[in-house]
Amino acid sequence: MTPKVSIIMGSTSDLKIMEAAAEFLDQMEVPYEINALSAHRVPEMVAEFAKNAHTRGVKVIIAGAGGAAHLPGVIAATTPLPVIGIPIKSSNSIDGWDSILSILQMPAGIPVATMALDGARNGAILAVQILAAGDEELMRKFVAFKSELAQKIGKANRELAQIKRPFKTN
Amino acid sequence: MTPKVSIIMGSTSDLKIMEAAAEFLDQMEVPYEINALSAHRVPEMVAEFAKNAHTRGVKVIIAGAGGAAHLPGVIAATTPLPVIGIPIKSSNSIDGWDSILSILQMPAGIPVATMALDGARNGAILAVQILAAGDEELMRKFVAFKSELAQKIGKANRELAQIKRPFKTN
Amino acid sequence: MTPKVSIIMGSTSDLKIMEAAAEFLDQMEVPYEINALSAHRVPEMVAEFAKNAHTRGVKVIIAGAGGAAHLPGVIAATTPLPVIGIPIKSSNSIDGWDSILSILQMPAGIPVATMALDGARNGAILAVQILAAGDEELMRKFVAFKSELAQKIGKANRELAQIKRPFKTN
Amino acid sequence: MTPKVSIIMGSTSDLKIMEAAAEFLDQMEVPYEINALSAHRVPEMVAEFAKNAHTRGVKVIIAGAGGAAHLPGVIAATTPLPVIGIPIKSSNSIDGWDSILSILQMPAGIPVATMALDGARNGAILAVQILAAGDEELMRKFVAFKSELAQKIGKANRELAQIKRPFKTN
Amino acid sequence: MTPKVSIIMGSTSDLKIMEAAAEFLDQMEVPYEINALSAHRVPEMVAEFAKNAHTRGVKVIIAGAGGAAHLPGVIAATTPLPVIGIPIKSSNSIDGWDSILSILQMPAGIPVATMALDGARNGAILAVQILAAGDEELMRKFVAFKSELAQKIGKANRELAQIKRPFKTN
Amino acid sequence: MTPKVSIIMGSTSDLKIMEAAAEFLDQMEVPYEINALSAHRVPEMVAEFAKNAHTRGVKVIIAGAGGAAHLPGVIAATTPLPVIGIPIKSSNSIDGWDSILSILQMPAGIPVATMALDGARNGAILAVQILAAGDEELMRKFVAFKSELAQKIGKANRELAQIKRPFKTN
Amino acid sequence: MTPKVSIIMGSTSDLKIMEAAAEFLDQMEVPYEINALSAHRVPEMVAEFAKNAHTRGVKVIIAGAGGAAHLPGVIAATTPLPVIGIPIKSSNSIDGWDSILSILQMPAGIPVATMALDGARNGAILAVQILAAGDEELMRKFVAFKSELAQKIGKANRELAQIKRPFKTN
Amino acid sequence: MTPKVSIIMGSTSDLKIMEAAAEFLDQMEVPYEINALSAHRVPEMVAEFAKNAHTRGVKVIIAGAGGAAHLPGVIAATTPLPVIGIPIKSSNSIDGWDSILSILQMPAGIPVATMALDGARNGAILAVQILAAGDEELMRKFVAFKSELAQKIGKANRELAQIKRPFKTN
Repeated sequence: MTPKVSIIMGSTSDLKIMEAAAEFLDQMEVPYEINALSAHRVPEMVAEFAKNAHTRGVKVIIAGAGGAAHLPGVIAATTPLPVIGIPIKSSNSIDGWDSILSILQMPAGIPVATMALDGARNGAILAVQILAAGDEELMRKFVAFKSELAQKIGKANRELAQIKRPFKTN
Repeated sequence: MTPKVSIIMGSTSDLKIMEAAAEFLDQMEVPYEINALSAHRVPEMVAEFAKNAHTRGVKVIIAGAGGAAHLPGVIAATTPLPVIGIPIKSSNSIDGWDSILSILQMPAGIPVATMALDGARNGAILAVQILAAGDEELMRKFVAFKSELAQKIGKANRELAQIKRPFKTN
Repeated sequence: MTPKVSIIMGSTSDLKIMEAAAEFLDQMEVPYEINALSAHRVPEMVAEFAKNAHTRGVKVIIAGAGGAAHLPGVIAATTPLPVIGIPIKSSNSIDGWDSILSILQMPAGIPVATMALDGARNGAILAVQILAAGDEELMRKFVAFKSELAQKIGKANRELAQIKRPFKTN
Repeated sequence: MTPKVSIIMGSTSDLKIMEAAAEFLDQMEVPYEINALSAHRVPEMVAEFAKNAHTRGVKVIIAGAGGAAHLPGVIAATTPLPVIGIPIKSSNSIDGWDSILSILQMPAGIPVATMALDGARNGAILAVQILAAGDEELMRKFVAFKSELAQKIGKANRELAQIKRPFKTN
Repeated sequence: MTPKVSIIMGSTSDLKIMEAAAEFLDQMEVPYEINALSAHRVPEMVAEFAKNAHTRGVKVIIAGAGGAAHLPGVIAATTPLPVIGIPIKSSNSIDGWDSILSILQMPAGIPVATMALDGARNGAILAVQILAAGDEELMRKFVAFKSELAQKIGKANRELAQIKRPFKTN
Repeated sequence: MTPKVSIIMGSTSDLKIMEAAAEFLDQMEVPYEINALSAHRVPEMVAEFAKNAHTRGVKVIIAGAGGAAHLPGVIAATTPLPVIGIPIKSSNSIDGWDSILSILQMPAGIPVATMALDGARNGAILAVQILAAGDEELMRKFVAFKSELAQKIGKANRELAQIKRPFKTN
Repeated sequence: MTPKVSIIMGSTSDLKIMEAAAEFLDQMEVPYEINALSAHRVPEMVAEFAKNAHTRGVKVIIAGAGGAAHLPGVIAATTPLPVIGIPIKSSNSIDGWDSILSILQMPAGIPVATMALDGARNGAILAVQILAAGDEELMRKFVAFKSELAQKIGKANRELAQIKRPFKTN
Repeated sequence: MTPKVSIIMGSTSDLKIMEAAAEFLDQMEVPYEINALSAHRVPEMVAEFAKNAHTRGVKVIIAGAGGAAHLPGVIAATTPLPVIGIPIKSSNSIDGWDSILSILQMPAGIPVATMALDGARNGAILAVQILAAGDEELMRKFVAFKSELAQKIGKANRELAQIKRPFKTN
């Protein structure tokens, strides 16, 4: 099946963060591909990737990187597809600020949809929201997922009320 | 014509930033609506807005706010549509850091596609990229816009080469 | 007994921080309730909670949250009661800055009384100070607590003087 | 009439920020007093002030200061009353961060209800919310103020819709 | 023997940092005293301490504190003696920034000689430099200490040259 | 008359900040000298200066610099005298953070007594406090200065009470 | 004459900062070229530029950019030449932090020699130092420039001594 | 063999970071020397080192330091050679910000080529790039190293594709 979402990361060491994106796409049954290509170490492969993604049928790109995180912006420069950026707090990052600012502060003309630090799962959720715009079945699945989320919280709160009773002397 | 993009901002004073989004949508001939609704001052109107947007035919929401900028996140909590957040460096903001972090650092499950500080134009570009996924004509317009951007830069560089000649004694 | 203070947090994982608030209220014998309701995952339950709290007899709300911490501000938008905000340095927070700025930098008209990072106990102390304004017995208890605090410090200092003697060769 | 709220600031140069607090109390017809006393230049006058405020009938203290802003915390150390702190971005402040952190990060036992940078008006609103807990007429006034706020926003949005029509070619 | 230096800290938990100051004074045989007095919990004891220190023969005060670290500034407000401030990265501090800014950014008229984060040893060195201005024997001891420091570094470098030889294939 | 205080700055452009130090020393009638010597542009002159200052009778050095502000630390490395550092928010500084951290975060063994950003006047006050330790007349002058400071504040507060009366409708 | 240094910037609006580099190269009579090519708007032209620079005889590249400043890193990824990065505090930058971190925090394998914010002149000085390694005449010119720098400072200090005399009452 | 690169660090405790520079020079077979000399503890040895390095045949200096990291700038002030600075996140550093800003923000005239935090390996790579400008064989080795880097990434990506297959249900 042709992948609709392409997950790409700057280094294989980012996989432990980025696999949360893959997991959510599995859950929603959205076909995807996953690659590790450094904007700095294999720039030509990245340029190739960015130029061809939309002709291969990909609809959304999720790109994660840490430190001076150029990968999402470099891809967004070439592809017409929406690019979702995941700033990663890698070992060589300064508390994640470098990753965030390198992805977020793109110049006018070349947006990157930036997620929270290490927010790979949210990147996949946004990708599904984008795909669902033109796919009614996916929209239904997504709405179901969202109301399930709310039900879990309601349940957690009721359990909390149980647990916390001994606290309340009143 | 039914608006496909809904632009919303926390205060009418944010309009001078947010109108850059409207201008780009005009340029791409994408129908939109524009509202100013504070998440903190009229929470019920915001809840109403968020609940109904997708049933009115809106496909993407662009929400801008400054300071403790809750508007994009509060809307994303309710709507199934993709929400693009524009952090605004308003007069009561601490150099924009509060606006950025309040929009960017959303919890798992509720993404907001965050743009650069005051990046309203990029918000509209991303909205067009999202719509173009299911609209071939819009995709063509967008690809044309992107190559025009490149041509302008090429021209600017050639002009620079002219201007800078006197500098080069060599 | 009707709770006078309502403790609310964005996620059950915040409980390990927020229970310090419950403990102080227990110590002062102030009746309270405790809930976990995410502003982003169950927005309608939060709106319901905020609208009704003061009609149920609650006098002060203590709301804790981490990351893009919208819960205290969202509640303050609706309730006429004073809202005390506890920024929490949760696992997905950037050293707590996002939690602090999302709670502190509220716009004109909607204050949130912000405490130090993870300062749940201080939130409860402020709540007692607010209640004590109209409750002489509680004021007496609180004044007693405050002078006890001072006595403990005096005692600690005297013990330190003992312990440190071997250091002083003079 | 005995003042119920005491506004205090570290320097007369803070008055241009702090008078927004006085204006809101005037609007709500809450009696107040206003003083400028530096925690560092007249520490004994400040200690005297803090010790006696509650015996003079004051119910809430609003303290504003900039730079290494010790005034709110120093007063909170002595008074049993709730203290609201206003961090001020004064000329000798580093973008306001020093003012915020010096007021916000109080140790366990001594809370200061911190407002946004330069948020004097919100300080007065919180003071009114605290007083309203035991004063039904003030509560009515405050609820009226809050719904007026919402109406103004609704009106501003309707006006925006008018103004922005020319933008929409659609 | 009358103490010439007074070491004071906001909490006994700061002792593990502040004892480095005591150790250096022991090494230089300068008589000192050591106290733990919170500016917020026992403000009157602190005021008493600050008022009397110079009449008891103390010449320099070293004050350490964390979080909203008011102790050094509060003491400097009252004493005519030079006050050396040690910002402490305590458990409730935001990476030490709050401690640093609360001590460093004192207003005109009330200086605090601020040391590096957790720099208690350097505080004692500065105290010795201040005392040595009017004490030739202490100056000799201090100059000896300083040249010893340089010798240790020279020795470490020579050892490094040994150790690193295997690295150099050249 | 032999200067007791040596004021030194990294660039003549720092003079507009550093002259506040000279003014206070004039007021206290303490003899001083003033120099502009860059640690980076004339390192040998700076080394010469630092080596000889105490043999020329100087008792305290006040060193101001901006950006990567090495001057105070470089001098402290060589002189046995106490060095007071003034971080300057020069045009090439990042909001003053670089100046502060380059001066404050000195390694163990080499303290610099750091003042607030642009705090040259406080640097001179600390210098006077250091000199006053061994000079009773100077101590008297300084104590007089300090109580004058308090009187001015008291007067300012009384004037404020006058001015603000029209505000109080109560 | 073949350019030895290539100055490149992300946008023609960066020229007002980057021309300081050109001026220093003119002064040292080093042949250079100057271009404006955005990494995001004309990625292929940038890739072309980076691939060919060293074959055209260029020895050092100076690249300036602001915001999410990818240009220096993207060039360094492809060229074997040393790349000097100039972070620019452009209008869309957050006080320059984004520019600095995007250039500085490059991953292992792809260094960029980062200069101070807006430090284009220093970029050219470093370029000359690099070229001077293999060019004795240029080294002589550079050493002359450096000692001239020191002489100017010495002269400025002597003038300061003149000017400041009226200050010194002593 | 005469060392062409001189590695120097502020303290022997920086060796665990700086040896990555030595390792890369070993790999490229570039002769180097390695020293630990504190700018603050042995300023005269550092001045001696900086004055003589280029007369001993050294072509590039790599200097690492933490906290108020003056070593690279102090050396750059004296030597005509290019100086590469490595900010080190040492135990007494505030998350590395002090190290970075003390090295990066050098004044006009005295550049330091700043690397990423703890980026010693990149410092050595830049040193090789500088030397390779005038050494064709070294350039060939460096180009070989760079393409090897790209091949490793390509291989890692192909392995990732293998590993991740079970993820893809599609």
